[in-house]
Amino acid sequence: MQHLNADNMQNEANNTPLANNHISVDCVVFGFDGERLKVLLIKRMGEEQGEIFHDMKLPGSLIYMDEDLDEAAKRVLNELTGLKNVQLMQFKAFGSKDRTKDPKDIHWLERAMQLKVERIVTIAYLSVLKIDRTLSRNLDAYQAKWVALDEVKTLAFDHNLIIKEALVYIRQYVEFNPLILFELLPRKFTASQLRMLYEVIYGNSMDVRNFHKKIAMMEYVVPLDEKQQGVPHRAARYYRFDKKIYNKIRR
Amino acid sequence: MQHLNADNMQNEANNTPLANNHISVDCVVFGFDGERLKVLLIKRMGEEQGEIFHDMKLPGSLIYMDEDLDEAAKRVLNELTGLKNVQLMQFKAFGSKDRTKDPKDIHWLERAMQLKVERIVTIAYLSVLKIDRTLSRNLDAYQAKWVALDEVKTLAFDHNLIIKEALVYIRQYVEFNPLILFELLPRKFTASQLRMLYEVIYGNSMDVRNFHKKIAMMEYVVPLDEKQQGVPHRAARYYRFDKKIYNKIRR
Repeated sequence: MQHLNADNMQNEANNTPLANNHISVDCVVFGFDGERLKVLLIKRMGEEQGEIFHDMKLPGSLIYMDEDLDEAAKRVLNELTGLKNVQLMQFKAFGSKDRTKDPKDIHWLERAMQLKVERIVTIAYLSVLKIDRTLSRNLDAYQAKWVALDEVKTLAFDHNLIIKEALVYIRQYVEFNPLILFELLPRKFTASQLRMLYEVIYGNSMDVRNFHKKIAMMEYVVPLDEKQQGVPHRAARYYRFDKKIYNKIRR
Repeated sequence: MQHLNADNMQNEANNTPLANNHISVDCVVFGFDGERLKVLLIKRMGEEQGEIFHDMKLPGSLIYMDEDLDEAAKRVLNELTGLKNVQLMQFKAFGSKDRTKDPKDIHWLERAMQLKVERIVTIAYLSVLKIDRTLSRNLDAYQAKWVALDEVKTLAFDHNLIIKEALVYIRQYVEFNPLILFELLPRKFTASQLRMLYEVIYGNSMDVRNFHKKIAMMEYVVPLDEKQQGVPHRAARYYRFDKKIYNKIRR
């Protein structure tokens, strides 16, 4: 058979060990509380060198033999947070050999899965949700929790990096698909909520007057007659997102 | 240990087999010959049911234990096409369980790799190249070949799907980063070459006069004094892409 393979061999005369990997999916779910961008994390408890530790991680797990990647992401998010019918976008695979370099992570996973773990390539998914929708469910029973981005501590594996890259991806995505901004906002929102959402995503502050001009340009952001009530400052007007106008303009 | 894991177990009392996968990288390299979009493919020869067959596939292979995904993509592209210093972007992971449903593909891979193959998740990378740069190398020695997109036949595994998705990705990418268009064009190009590139990427035709207006709007597309020579039709003006102006405008 050797002569047949000669042209096609991709591991030619090379004894470098091939990676035999586990595959996982991890979900980065962002929510916006009107002021801060938050990410959905789950608690993790493990034991390392006889000490019990508590930290957090993204909702994620290994995939099953009989499921596709997208299916696995949906299943895992549901199992770990109770969330259903969430639109998840695959955004990047993380496969650095260093992502499993912390023995704490490997020991935890081997104990939970009861199998030997070497290298894990994870396929990362992204979603944005209205934060009140999800908070109305009893997430606590699943140990899931919204954590503001600036309060996220050191997470398991390379999950801090995955969140960072998810934010980079969202910034680019918003450029050609601003729709997702409105999936993060409540049905009725004020101009300053929309501005703050831009600010937290892009990580810089925007001039209030210029931002009002920007909103005026967005035909799909429709002012309502309604204003805020019972606020200590001057009541702001509410806006809503009009998906029909959006779709018409976008093509 | 069971009580410790109860909160964290992600494979809870579930005996569904976990996927134990091989990971590969596949590279979609696009080139533009002035009229058509082409993709770089390599030849594959295999044997199935006693018959030798020839077909084509994307340059790709399994990753090694000691390399990161990006490293693997660079190595594999170099080994299979001779190309070096190519900028590759990871764009999507393909992990459907159906991607290895054709026994022909599995048998071929098992013979080439001399190992048992079950499921393979592939991380797909994308690159665009000036076609003349690459053709100046002796690609033929590596069995690599540029094939026009409309002439691509049924490829190994799900490689037709991967190319299709690469094109979807490029369309979105061009929207916020038109720079890559100019990486596909020669240093000096005509307006009609740029227009045809848009047409092949978006899969529709553009009005010539409107397109000239569009070019006039692109400050970074600079007209040269030089015109085509020795052409049977009216000689067209050449343009060049000015990266300095582009970077200045883009932020």
